[in-house]
Amino acid sequence: MAQTEDMGINFHTRKWVKPEDLNANGTLFGGSLLRWIDEEAAIYAIIQLGNYRVVTKFISEINFEASAQQGDLIEMGLIATHFGRTSLTMRAVVRNMITRRTILTIDRIVFVNVDEEGRPTPHGYSSITYNRDRMPTEHPQTGTIRTV
Amino acid sequence: MAQTEDMGINFHTRKWVKPEDLNANGTLFGGSLLRWIDEEAAIYAIIQLGNYRVVTKFISEINFEASAQQGDLIEMGLIATHFGRTSLTMRAVVRNMITRRTILTIDRIVFVNVDEEGRPTPHGYSSITYNRDRMPTEHPQTGTIRTV
Amino acid sequence: MAQTEDMGINFHTRKWVKPEDLNANGTLFGGSLLRWIDEEAAIYAIIQLGNYRVVTKFISEINFEASAQQGDLIEMGLIATHFGRTSLTMRAVVRNMITRRTILTIDRIVFVNVDEEGRPTPHGYSSITYNRDRMPTEHPQTGTIRTV
Amino acid sequence: MAQTEDMGINFHTRKWVKPEDLNANGTLFGGSLLRWIDEEAAIYAIIQLGNYRVVTKFISEINFEASAQQGDLIEMGLIATHFGRTSLTMRAVVRNMITRRTILTIDRIVFVNVDEEGRPTPHGYSSITYNRDRMPTEHPQTGTIRTV
Amino acid sequence: MAQTEDMGINFHTRKWVKPEDLNANGTLFGGSLLRWIDEEAAIYAIIQLGNYRVVTKFISEINFEASAQQGDLIEMGLIATHFGRTSLTMRAVVRNMITRRTILTIDRIVFVNVDEEGRPTPHGYSSITYNRDRMPTEHPQTGTIRTV
Amino acid sequence: MAQTEDMGINFHTRKWVKPEDLNANGTLFGGSLLRWIDEEAAIYAIIQLGNYRVVTKFISEINFEASAQQGDLIEMGLIATHFGRTSLTMRAVVRNMITRRTILTIDRIVFVNVDEEGRPTPHGYSSITYNRDRMPTEHPQTGTIRTV
Repeated sequence: MAQTEDMGINFHTRKWVKPEDLNANGTLFGGSLLRWIDEEAAIYAIIQLGNYRVVTKFISEINFEASAQQGDLIEMGLIATHFGRTSLTMRAVVRNMITRRTILTIDRIVFVNVDEEGRPTPHGYSSITYNRDRMPTEHPQTGTIRTV
Repeated sequence: MAQTEDMGINFHTRKWVKPEDLNANGTLFGGSLLRWIDEEAAIYAIIQLGNYRVVTKFISEINFEASAQQGDLIEMGLIATHFGRTSLTMRAVVRNMITRRTILTIDRIVFVNVDEEGRPTPHGYSSITYNRDRMPTEHPQTGTIRTV
Repeated sequence: MAQTEDMGINFHTRKWVKPEDLNANGTLFGGSLLRWIDEEAAIYAIIQLGNYRVVTKFISEINFEASAQQGDLIEMGLIATHFGRTSLTMRAVVRNMITRRTILTIDRIVFVNVDEEGRPTPHGYSSITYNRDRMPTEHPQTGTIRTV
Repeated sequence: MAQTEDMGINFHTRKWVKPEDLNANGTLFGGSLLRWIDEEAAIYAIIQLGNYRVVTKFISEINFEASAQQGDLIEMGLIATHFGRTSLTMRAVVRNMITRRTILTIDRIVFVNVDEEGRPTPHGYSSITYNRDRMPTEHPQTGTIRTV
Repeated sequence: MAQTEDMGINFHTRKWVKPEDLNANGTLFGGSLLRWIDEEAAIYAIIQLGNYRVVTKFISEINFEASAQQGDLIEMGLIATHFGRTSLTMRAVVRNMITRRTILTIDRIVFVNVDEEGRPTPHGYSSITYNRDRMPTEHPQTGTIRTV
Repeated sequence: MAQTEDMGINFHTRKWVKPEDLNANGTLFGGSLLRWIDEEAAIYAIIQLGNYRVVTKFISEINFEASAQQGDLIEMGLIATHFGRTSLTMRAVVRNMITRRTILTIDRIVFVNVDEEGRPTPHGYSSITYNRDRMPTEHPQTGTIRTV
């Protein structure tokens, strides 16, 4: 059985598969999985680009290698693989926490850094940070500067 | 602005974008969109293969061409593009019902026809039906034959 | 077993009954069904009246003829039956896609066309369109004119 | 402005209208409202008939007299109006807790008492109880007798 | 088996435990329960303090005495136990409607009355009302005075 | 402003506050927060006790130190603080990922290890593992041994 070998990837968000996450056949609904990954990728992009305004632009091939069932524990891992001028490319892996078996992998999820009008805008970064040193200083709703 | 030119595609399911479908930036959450497409593709596959037991196996590149906002009307279109021995490949388009602008396209969504043990099994079809003449005769839960 | 005989009705939105749609007895929750119909009727009304501002005003008797279970495929059909000065009356049918058995019918769902203050306002139409030629030209959120 | 004058009705379940309950126009989604009423009616019927197996059979005309918005407090009231041999008819009122303005009324919601096979079965009651003296003694899932 | 003995508590909101409320083990998810209580307590506080702007400040020890399963009927009871200058303290009980067995109790849920800037502000009350005579006169969204 | 100083705590699951997570005042709903923590604590307990059958037994005082708004990034941290014979006690912290400000802390969340009948049963552990070496070998649904 395949084990993930993504040494550089950090797994953060975890899910406990509940009835609300199942499809009509009683296995984990692919759509729920895609929803979870998209949220996790958005969070990762915000942290790397220091901007709350990021949008999903592109998702490369998704291979569903294994399924999951009610009660399974799932974890999602992401790593930045390329910093474009206005974009960030990430690699994603979802796996079973217990068996460590890969559920799916996505080679490239591309988010774009946008301005207040929704237009692509340069983010100014070219490598991963592990320090949370690119924090947005504005408030996500009001846009006012945080003085904390 | 790009208009969909998918003449053969039939658009069925529609959505009215509500607050519960939005991401934290207030635009349509990509994950919600992927959840809707996955359900629509499953329904399409069940109708074509005459079997409730179908699973998402592969989704090709997804290009998010435009976004959507609260209040927008969305419609989803699918068409079978290839019948494998145990699989079905579909093409998907999501567009704004009013402007007809394409929101995203997916060239290949592959579902696999499985048996009760979840193993791929031949479905026996090689072309699209428009007549609902491949209806499962079993009940989806009990597996008992429907005599209607 | 009763089959729907609504020749003029077009069925659009489809649902695959999932665990989240069930009541505590494990059958399709009537409330979920009503929620789906109300959304579908709103979409139909917006398309016919060329205005995003429509509100549910009245729903006539609802007869639950049959139930549905997890895994069933459901489709919803609507047709305009009367154009009032400020209102639109529709007939709705929900049926099982596989057996074609009617799940429920509603003779009259009445939506009212309202202005920005929520007051009933004439819509100016008196017959069904099948062409999407009554599209709102305003954006649903901002009210700005779309130039596309 | 109309005030509810349903002296005999007891209002139990309350809702605080949240973003997830809104339609795309930002007012309370009629479908959410119908979902809440259906659940409340099921609970009322179970208490009156002493049986967890009850199904929605019929809902009479629904008149949406007023709307509600995010932040509004809503309460739902029900009263049994007729005990049939296998059915129970209830009257429902939904109103704003603060202004007491009626949001909608439904004259007749009919639930049917069913057996394990889903067939209508006599419930043996002919009047309202206010004492919770018709409690099911079986467990809702296992059907085993509760000895408490 | 323990029965609730909270004579002064009024039980209002009821829930019928559905699949969407379950954890991955198939019993009522503690998190769902806490979500329901928090909403019920907010409604109770708004009614007592005559102000829509109330926030959860503190929840004392929660003892999960019994569980619940799909199909169970649950009711939530609250009673104000202390009026501070800017706060309101409530006691909460959740119990099974049929067996009357206590599911959980919370001795103190404290809400704070806040102004438009979110700062604690005096509410001016020192005892429970049973008459809904402390109704907010503003609209929850616009803040405009209601003249009804 | 208070910063979390929980050096030993590992923060895993992250949330991006979306409209569906808000209360009627437009701030993060306390009930959503409690739901997220309860799921995260269950996952942590399963990993530490090597058993999918764990239930929430007790939650100590919860102090809501700060709120959160749509668009905020939240992270949840847990650490085991006591291993009882059949129980596990954890400490929880929820904080804003950007400002690192603490949103709430819970000193003691107690889960109990139960057997197939739901009775407390010894788990046999007395200290934290960081290695995922206490994995359940049964499948969460079928109880069959996994041979992977």
